[in-house]
This record gives sequence, structure tokens and C-alpha cells, in this order.
Amino acid sequence: MLKLFYAPGSCSLASHIALEEVGADYEARRVDFLRAEQNKRDYLAINPKGRVPALVTDRGIITETPAILTYVAQAYPDARLAPFNDAFAFARIQSFLGYLSSTVHVAHAHGRRGARWADDPASHEAMRRKVAVNMWACFDLIERTMLEGPFVMGEAYSIADPYLFTIACWLESDGVDPSGFPKLLDHRERMTARLAVARVLADL
Amino acid sequence: MLKLFYAPGSCSLASHIALEEVGADYEARRVDFLRAEQNKRDYLAINPKGRVPALVTDRGIITETPAILTYVAQAYPDARLAPFNDAFAFARIQSFLGYLSSTVHVAHAHGRRGARWADDPASHEAMRRKVAVNMWACFDLIERTMLEGPFVMGEAYSIADPYLFTIACWLESDGVDPSGFPKLLDHRERMTARLAVARVLADL
Repeated sequence: MLKLFYAPGSCSLASHIALEEVGADYEARRVDFLRAEQNKRDYLAINPKGRVPALVTDRGIITETPAILTYVAQAYPDARLAPFNDAFAFARIQSFLGYLSSTVHVAHAHGRRGARWADDPASHEAMRRKVAVNMWACFDLIERTMLEGPFVMGEAYSIADPYLFTIACWLESDGVDPSGFPKLLDHRERMTARLAVARVLADL
Repeated sequence: MLKLFYAPGSCSLASHIALEEVGADYEARRVDFLRAEQNKRDYLAINPKGRVPALVTDRGIITETPAILTYVAQAYPDARLAPFNDAFAFARIQSFLGYLSSTVHVAHAHGRRGARWADDPASHEAMRRKVAVNMWACFDLIERTMLEGPFVMGEAYSIADPYLFTIACWLESDGVDPSGFPKLLDHRERMTARLAVARVLADL
């Protein structure tokens, strides 16, 4: 059975939703960030990076959201969450996952995790001040050039959707008013209406 | 014909090497960062993010290094640069690409691109001061837990290798002495000995 290590409010929500969407037989194990469990020996043996998500499979452990999402889509092909037989369409999904993980999530992380990149509190505060404008710029680009609608890749729901939803849920707390992003608002509504999403959110 | 937009010294080197490895028919177009061409209208029409690499295909444009690498591997299956028929093995490669793009490249970027995340020069300087320790920690983790040797995934050369090589070339300028990473040093030597790598480096 698969085992997902997750934390509420983190990007692990995307993998969690994907597992629920495909009807996987999995167990969700909460990592308590308030007690810094992600940095303790037991968890570091699972993921030496000290981050969530981590997916334990019968062959080994997978980390990094884009990799877990891709694995879930490939391991449960009947759910058709990614077009593995079309190199260009698959690359477009990978490109979107890559943008979210290496740019958008990183922009968000500067609000609370500034200590990763600088040691002094003044710099952390300076980073916090720039989060809203950076997140707005990211989502403006997503709205204008990436989110086709109704789903990220158009009519077909894919692994790109739970990941976008996960990060879009952070906008208000990052100081961004999403009312100027109509496609994104429609996307959030469609996502919260999905049974898989409701189940995961109820269980966190 | 494929067209790769690249800049010397940037992460586009990974995609460039991969195209050369598979023997692709491609044209390499240099983007002049000194003249800020990446932020001018002509280039923003190709990649609205204002970054390299961007790969122009007959079906559209692909951005983000992990997506381009995966596309090249899938479009040229004879080169066997990724195990598409093994979901777990493929996920391991995706996980490695994801770590490089969302953590290691980001750690490096704080040395020169601090203005992305804070506005004041003191914060940029504080970020610069932390680059060496962060890059050392990333490569310590890579050496201990990811780089199997001789190549990233073991005996088989894959798209993970040109990407690791690209970022590993930044270590000295980031203030990291790589002599404590014997597997990495061996990897860099193997990479520079490859004809595809030599060809790309000679052409930059």
C-alpha cells in the first residue's frame, strides 16, 4: 500500500488530491510541523530533505511534488491524468508543474521561510514585503498564458490541476486579491466541487 | 527543426547538451543577457517568463529545464535518456530534476538574483552571504543520497546527468570547494570527456 507523508497547508495537498482522484489504496500520515517532526531522525530517514510530501511505494520513496504527481498519473493510467503517449502535451504539463515548483512555490516560501536564504531578521522582513507582488505577477502570468480553462490544460483534468489549486489556496494569505483572475476563480470553484478534493480537505 | 534559446552560464546548458546527445537537428540561438534581451518584446513573445531555456518545436514552445529534458528524451527514444516504461524509475529521475530546479538552482540564484525576492541592497548582500553554505548543503545531500555513480541513476546515462553537470559547474563561483565530493568530481570528469558536452561548450 502507498503511504503519503503530508502536512496541512503545505504543497503535499496536490499529491494527496491526486491519490484520491485515482482511487489509490493509500494511507496518509501527517507530519507535525509545529513539533518540527520533518527535521527529526525518524522522518529524515524517509526524506533526508526534511520536507513533505514523500510517497512510500513498494519499490522505494519518491519526493518532489512534480515527481509524485507524475508517478501517480503513470501508475493509474485509467484515470488519464497525463498524456504519456504525446511527448509535446506531456512536456506542457511538465512545464507547468516545473513553473509552480521552481518559481511560484519559491515566491510564496519567501514569506515564511526566509531563513533558508538569509540569516538576519531584516532580510526576512524585506522578503515578506515582496511576496504579494511576486505572487500576483506569477498568477497574472498563469491567468494570461497558462491556464487554458476550465482546467489548466483545457477540457481534460490532469495532474496540473490539483497542484494549481493547492498553490492558489495560498493567495489571500499571501496578500493577493484574486478577483482579477476570473479563470483562476472558476478553477478554484470547480476544484472545491470535486468529491476527491472535498474528501481530502475533510480529512486533513 | 528545433530551436533552443540559450545563454552561456545559465541552466540552458543542460538542455543544450541533451539535444546534442540525442543527435537532434536543432539550431541554438543565443539570448544576450548583458543587453537584457530576455526582457525585450521579441523574446518575451517566445517565453513570457523572460528566462532561458526555451525550446521551439513544430507544435509549440516548451520552457522549464525538467520539461525540455523530458521532452528531448521522449522525442528521441533511441538515445534511452529516460526509462518511460518504468513508473518508479522515471519518478526517480523526475524527483532529481525537481530537486535541482526548485531547490539547488534557487539556492544558487540568491547570489546574483536577490532582487527577485527583496528590494533592498542589504538583503541582497545577506542572501549572497548564504549561497556557499546552502549550495554546499545541497551537494552534500546529492553526494550522500542521490548520485549513485558513475552517473546519477547508476550505470545508465540519463537526462539527470547534463542537469547535474550544469549546476555543478557553478560550485566554485558560488564559493564551494567540491573536493569533499568524490562522486561528483568523477561525474564532472566523465561529463567533460563526452563528445556531446565538448561540442556544446566549444560552441557557446
